[in-house]
Parts: sequence; C-alpha cells; structure tokens
Amino acid sequence: MNGKWYINKGEHGDVVISTRIRLARNIAKYPFPVRLDAEGRQKVFAEVRKAVQADKSAGFGYIDMSALNRSQAVSLAERHLISPEFAGSNSPGALLLTEDESVSIMVCEEDHIRLQVMQAGLALQEAYARADAIDDALDARLAYAYDARLGYLTQCPTNLGTAMRASVMLHLPALTRCGQISRLAGAVSKLGLIIRGAHGEGSSPKGDLYQLSNQITLGITEKAALDNLQSITLQLVNQERDARKALLENPAESDKVWRALGILQTARLLSGDEFMELVSLVRLGCAAGMLDTPLEKVNELMISMQPATITAAQGRNLTSQQRDAVRAEQVRSALAAG
Amino acid sequence: MNGKWYINKGEHGDVVISTRIRLARNIAKYPFPVRLDAEGRQKVFAEVRKAVQADKSAGFGYIDMSALNRSQAVSLAERHLISPEFAGSNSPGALLLTEDESVSIMVCEEDHIRLQVMQAGLALQEAYARADAIDDALDARLAYAYDARLGYLTQCPTNLGTAMRASVMLHLPALTRCGQISRLAGAVSKLGLIIRGAHGEGSSPKGDLYQLSNQITLGITEKAALDNLQSITLQLVNQERDARKALLENPAESDKVWRALGILQTARLLSGDEFMELVSLVRLGCAAGMLDTPLEKVNELMISMQPATITAAQGRNLTSQQRDAVRAEQVRSALAAG
Repeated sequence: MNGKWYINKGEHGDVVISTRIRLARNIAKYPFPVRLDAEGRQKVFAEVRKAVQADKSAGFGYIDMSALNRSQAVSLAERHLISPEFAGSNSPGALLLTEDESVSIMVCEEDHIRLQVMQAGLALQEAYARADAIDDALDARLAYAYDARLGYLTQCPTNLGTAMRASVMLHLPALTRCGQISRLAGAVSKLGLIIRGAHGEGSSPKGDLYQLSNQITLGITEKAALDNLQSITLQLVNQERDARKALLENPAESDKVWRALGILQTARLLSGDEFMELVSLVRLGCAAGMLDTPLEKVNELMISMQPATITAAQGRNLTSQQRDAVRAEQVRSALAAG
Repeated sequence: MNGKWYINKGEHGDVVISTRIRLARNIAKYPFPVRLDAEGRQKVFAEVRKAVQADKSAGFGYIDMSALNRSQAVSLAERHLISPEFAGSNSPGALLLTEDESVSIMVCEEDHIRLQVMQAGLALQEAYARADAIDDALDARLAYAYDARLGYLTQCPTNLGTAMRASVMLHLPALTRCGQISRLAGAVSKLGLIIRGAHGEGSSPKGDLYQLSNQITLGITEKAALDNLQSITLQLVNQERDARKALLENPAESDKVWRALGILQTARLLSGDEFMELVSLVRLGCAAGMLDTPLEKVNELMISMQPATITAAQGRNLTSQQRDAVRAEQVRSALAAG
C-alpha cells in the first residue's frame, strides 16, 4: 500500500478522510455506452486510452476489466476507485488508473468517461484543479458531447450541466453516537447536498463513515458547488469535533475506545463488520490524541481490511473464517502494542 | 502482596488454585460462643492468643475484629481468611493470622477455634500436616472438648468427629463451558464430597472457581477423608485438562482468550464481575501456554482485585466507578503488554 494517496495527511483529517471529484464526460461521435455495441466499445476504449496515455508523465496504467477476477474487481469498488455497478457489470469496461490510485477513469461505465480524483483530507480546490487539468487535456483530444444550454451531455439527466459530483468522506463517530445524523441529513438536503453511509446503507453505516456530496449540477458553476460543499463540510467538522469532546469526557465512552484497541491488538478472528465498528472507535481515539497510532495508518487499515481487498491481496480464495483470521493478523501487526 | 502464600507455584496449579484445611475446636471449660457472654469471650480470646503466640517463630499477628472497618473485614472474607459470617458479625471476635496469610485462626466464630491452613495448588497432605502440628501445640495448652465416641465436639453436629473440612479451589473454565458441572456435582455427592461456586452461588460462579470439599466428618479418619478428596480432585483435574484441550482447538474459543487479554490490557473501567469473567479466560490461556503471564500473577489478581480488597488497600472510600477505575489501572499494569 506504499505510495497510495491515502498515506498522506490531509487537511481536517481528524474528520475528513478524503475528497473526491468525479466528472462525467461523453464523446460526441459515439452513442452512450448503453447503446454501444461491442465493436463501438472497443473503439471508445482505444480512443480514451490513447488520449489519457498521451501524457506519459501522468502515469496511467490500463486495466481491461474482463481480465480481473471477482475479488480484484470488487476490491477496486471497495477502495472507491470504481462504482459497485462497474465491478459487477457483464458488459466490457476498461479502467485507467494512476500508480497512487488518486486518479481513475472508468471507460464505458454509465458514460464513456468517468474521471475521478481522490485526495486525503478536505481538498476540494486541489482535487478539482487536478481533475480540471486532466479534463482539459482530454477535451483537446476527444470531442466531448456538450451543449451550450445543458452543459456536458450525460446519459442520466441528473448529471447534466457541470456533470460534476464532488464529495467528502466524513468520519462521524460522535455525531452518530449522539443520534444527530438524521437531523443533519435533513438540514444538508435543504442546502442541495446529500449525506449517506459510505459503506452500506442504513441508520448506522459501517465505521461511521459518511459521504457528503452535491446534488445539483444544472444551473450552477463548479465553483459555486464546491464553495457550498466546502462551507457545509467545515460546519460538520466543527460539530463532530464538539461532539467528540463531549463524548470522550465520559469515562465509560473513552473506556470503549481503549477496549476497541485492546481487542484489535489481540483478536485472532475479526469479521469485517466488527473490525469497522472497532476501528472507528480507535480512529476516534487517535484523532483525539488518546492513542498514538497515526491516523493515516488507521485510514489505510479501513481501506485495506475490506473483504475483497483482503482476498485480492492474498491472491487465493479464502473461506470467511480464513479471511477473518488474515484480517485479525494484519490488524494486530499494524496496531501492535509498544 | 509480596510473600503471601498464593505467590507460590502449586502442584497441579493449572487447575487447582489452592488447598485448604479447616479444623474446628472448642475449649472444654467454656460454653460454645453462641452461649458465651462478653467477659467469657474476652477470656477465650486471651487464652487462645496466649497459646497461639507461645511459639514466637510461628509469627502469628493478633487482630481484634472490632477494630477493622467494613472493607477490611470483608476483604479478609474475600481472601478466604475468615468466613463471610465472621466478617459481618456483630459479636466480638478475634483473628490470629500469619504474615503470609497461610494460617488463620478465627476465635469465637461458630466454634472457639477455627484453624485454617491454605497452600497453593494441590497439597492436602502438607496442609493437613501443618494444621495438625499447630493443632497439637494448641491441644497441649488448651484442653479441647473431646469425646471418645463423637470426636471433637462442635457447635454444629455436622462437624462432629474429625471436625475437619478439607477443600480444594478448582478453576474449571472448560468444564463450565461444556456444561459439565451439574453432572459432576451429582457424581461427587455420591462420593461424600460437595462442589460449589467459590464466589457466589448459581450455575456459573464468578471466575469459574469452584470449591470441592469433604462432607463427612463422623466415622471416618482424617487420612481417609483426605485420600478420597485427593483422588477425586485428580480425576477432575484430568477431565478439566481434556476439556481445555478440546475447547482451545476451536479457533473461535481461543480467540476469546486473546480478546479477554486485550480488554484487560486496555480497559479503563472494569467491574468486578467482568474482571472475573475475563481473567478466567486469561488464566485458561496462561495454563495452556498460549499466554506467557505466570499463573501465580493471575492468581494474585483474582484475589487482590475483589471489591473490598481494593477498597481496603486504597485506604479510603471509593465509589463503584472509582473502584472500577482502580481495578482497571492495576490490572493493566499487572498484565502490561511487552
């Protein structure tokens, strides 16, 4: 996992795990992927690959999705490099990916091009600037489907306009424990944003991880959308920080943080769900300075200890108990006491 | 706790925590304590004290029970140095106790003299020999109430005869988890023994600690009673060892041992009940060689982390949460990783 984007320390990293910008683009001369035959897809793969790899310094690798086994494909989705739909799709698809996994381009997912830039912490401007530069370079080589009134043309009308989805992944263990999430969800929706569990839907998502993203793409500039997301994110960051402070002043709650560390340091079997529950508490303790494990190490574990990512890294099929044993072993080694 | 009897390694110490011999004796010229007035009690205290302390080398200290506060008195009962009834009694009583707490003599409990010898592990012959030697020395100075047919005369007729209760404290975590205890209880009762929870009655006593003792004192020699207890103890030891081996071959069960250690090494609040539950698993792991904490250290914790013993050692009143915090701190320090 060396050299990946998530080993960096990000701004407001105690609460904001990562920032993601995603642009949807289509090439004017081809139908949308859903209407594209096998031959047409191959042409799109080739054109996009050529355009993306024209700049060797960007360092994009090319992955034929049909060459991956199921664990490898699902692992890409677990790491948010591709959509779950793309991982499970039967239609041919391709992925262009930088070595540090910070930039990925899905080719022939819902649109011809889904360009995504990820950065650690809160970094909306930087991530957008990077995405914008790559987008400009591609635009110079591929004629995008664009309409002066509707903006970028996308298969789904909800993406028309900027066709940009900006999001931040938030770690909200304290607001979750205080039962504040549904109130916040209502509040942010009135401001054009949506908050949802980053892993699994439901009232309490795994690891207390949430995705906050913009909903509106039409009739708004990228800058306005980013400014809005930035300002609301900062408000949530402050609310979470206040809630953490209050929570950890309760000895019974900080005790839970310590115990979570103790279990992760000793368990020989760890299911994915239990791991996420415990690592969330440990991350809370690290961010509060109670524990001295670096946050980036915890972030890395939250990414690398997902089921398909473990299986893909082992390079062999694992039973559920074998996977739980591998997870426990790697977590122990990462969080070893002393 | 340095120098106490329980820091020694005992025979069959993986299963047998301690051996206890208790002899009940009364002085012929005084009525039983229940019939004794305050002046009479003082005379008995003085006579027994003089007889016991005649041999300076034995090193008995004298404790006036009425000089102890409640925590100090209950702590003595938690450590099995006195009976719970003696700790809670409103009648005057006295205790003679050696520095290492291996020999204690309750004066004016149910009988004038309740002499008790404790040793680590399975040591019935040695403990009895020690008790017998002290008893002989006292007998030379105090004229015991003795009847050729009924043996030693005691207030409660169930103690007549040898007036000896021999017992072993067993740690049976595996047989408890396999649901074997009630079957064993039925079996040993047919052999003149009784098995019961050493801490708290009920189906699953705290810490999986059980007391196995002889029931019959009349019409049997001390030797026969000890031989019977010894032989059945060894059978239970073997059954427990087999059950532990089978239990720990199950990865989910050995995982519980590791987690118990992890929680004890990190928790900031530990109730007495939770501590006993977790330390029982840790003791199981130590005895099986999974963990490298010495068994004697675990035994010492099981004794010293009891509620009144913690409070008495702190020398001040503690709220329940304060006591749980002290317990957690001392357990962490005793079991510190690395």
